[in-house]
Amino acid sequence: MRFLAACRCQPVDATPVWFMRQAGRSLPEYRALRQGGSILEAIADPETAAEITLQPVRRYGVDAAILFSDIVVPLVAVGLEIDIVPGRGPVLGEPFSRPADLDRLRPLEPGEDLAHVLETIRLLSGELSVPLIGFAGAPFTLASYLVEGGPSRTFARTKVLMHAEPALFAELLSRLADISLAALRAQVGAGAAAVQLFDSWAGALSRAEYERFALPASRRVLEGLADLDVPRIHFGVGTGELLDLMAAAGADVVGVDWRVALDEAGRRVGAGRALQGNLDPALCLATPPVVEEAARQVLKEASGLPGHVFNLGHGVLPETDPGVLAAVVDLVHEETAR
Amino acid sequence: MRFLAACRCQPVDATPVWFMRQAGRSLPEYRALRQGGSILEAIADPETAAEITLQPVRRYGVDAAILFSDIVVPLVAVGLEIDIVPGRGPVLGEPFSRPADLDRLRPLEPGEDLAHVLETIRLLSGELSVPLIGFAGAPFTLASYLVEGGPSRTFARTKVLMHAEPALFAELLSRLADISLAALRAQVGAGAAAVQLFDSWAGALSRAEYERFALPASRRVLEGLADLDVPRIHFGVGTGELLDLMAAAGADVVGVDWRVALDEAGRRVGAGRALQGNLDPALCLATPPVVEEAARQVLKEASGLPGHVFNLGHGVLPETDPGVLAAVVDLVHEETAR
Repeated sequence: MRFLAACRCQPVDATPVWFMRQAGRSLPEYRALRQGGSILEAIADPETAAEITLQPVRRYGVDAAILFSDIVVPLVAVGLEIDIVPGRGPVLGEPFSRPADLDRLRPLEPGEDLAHVLETIRLLSGELSVPLIGFAGAPFTLASYLVEGGPSRTFARTKVLMHAEPALFAELLSRLADISLAALRAQVGAGAAAVQLFDSWAGALSRAEYERFALPASRRVLEGLADLDVPRIHFGVGTGELLDLMAAAGADVVGVDWRVALDEAGRRVGAGRALQGNLDPALCLATPPVVEEAARQVLKEASGLPGHVFNLGHGVLPETDPGVLAAVVDLVHEETAR
Repeated sequence: MRFLAACRCQPVDATPVWFMRQAGRSLPEYRALRQGGSILEAIADPETAAEITLQPVRRYGVDAAILFSDIVVPLVAVGLEIDIVPGRGPVLGEPFSRPADLDRLRPLEPGEDLAHVLETIRLLSGELSVPLIGFAGAPFTLASYLVEGGPSRTFARTKVLMHAEPALFAELLSRLADISLAALRAQVGAGAAAVQLFDSWAGALSRAEYERFALPASRRVLEGLADLDVPRIHFGVGTGELLDLMAAAGADVVGVDWRVALDEAGRRVGAGRALQGNLDPALCLATPPVVEEAARQVLKEASGLPGHVFNLGHGVLPETDPGVLAAVVDLVHEETAR
């Protein structure tokens, strides 16, 4: 399994490839399957979610599957009324702002609360020829949705709460860490062979804020997985200033966006860790020669790393031509075959 | 004039302060004046624009004024049909995509095209007790609006055009550089004592892309101002990876957001340059003790710099309490008085 080997900085026969959001709107077979119904409904139906998870594996020949789900699923499972609004993202009617809101976050009982997700993973175990990546949202990123009530550009409410009521914020992140940890452990128990912790919006924080608030909670999740012996991938966007801290939080693999070249990112995370990334998803809308050149550049910058999982620097854009991604998979495999 | 002295890394009696978007929606006197009418109409009326420019100087006691205008004003002046949509930003009905679109960008004749802006500056010359900062959009950021047709999160069309048609993109940026340079020279001619080049979205680029595409055009603007002997400030958001290049483009002062501490930013831009920044505008929505602590931290990190202009790391958020910003000005002046 070249994906797991690369995550562990072990020798591989070729660099493994997968794409964040490989299962989703860029695939015509996904759009055909998803006609009608909300995304949360599709996730809640194991047959549908398993099929969507499989679609990109069949089409692209990627080296890993990622569970079709969403980082808010465990929050919905503990009773929060979150809606995923198309074109906008997760929206919570009543945002979190005070201590009493903590009561809205009961502990996750994965066996019951995530029964449908675990069933999806079990279905996939019989079907997949490549490892399955489970995932969860990192506590800071989850908290940002709860405090903002939806996606944000400034994260102003979150930052204000963080600084104004640090104890409350720490408790919120601690509870979210417990939920994410429980969700990930259950996913591994059901068959996921690796996990990714998405701290998508950590890049909005200063280093000092990340260290004080986000890191302890993310460490709680990542270190809580240590005994399971599955690779732990840790990813955020615009996190160039935080890469060493995100590694120190307990990552085996650090995900990097296109703003930092992988050789430089390797220096920042230090020896002995694999990196994942970092083709700019925007470039995948260009013509094949442009995409190829950009993919080759990523491989060149990754050539000295102890482990490299080829990926995009953020999720696949919905407008992406699947043929372009298939060609990227082939190119990476051919160029790195040894 | 402590603002100009700090820009030039000369001794100051106290650290100067101003705020990006200090003139604008956070001020009740601005909202009162702007009842009805578009922002472009307000900019086009010299009496109104001058009054709006003066409002924050009166209220906050900042050490510099910044012209009330918008980076798209010179583009509107050469005939592009750009509308500034409240809550969204500049929108261009027909985005740029092909060589023929270059014909839509005629050279700027500032004396005629920007007559209203220059008149605003002349009105201000008689009123202002502090230096006036003129500004323009950097070619890459302007191009992103023209190619995307409005604000973007991914800049996908811009990046695709950049890589697919590098000669066309370079010509587009070159023409935009000529327009921004002409606009800035005219502003200085009319009385602006410093200029800021806003490359707000440069942080979306990789270093390689910035070096190849954005930097040559920004250098053309900044070096084209060298003979005027006014401080040139160069700013973008999320540009931690680019600070050395943005300095090398010809900046006397490099603007920094909150993601990189100013001492670290100083190491990146190298000796002999002043820095501007970098209080997180989101924190200005917090209570006074939180804001004070954050402002003191900025001052601490700036203490070893050859020159420091205190500012936010991005524009004032509309919800900001003006009293908070006034207190920041006082704190910075008191803490740094020598």
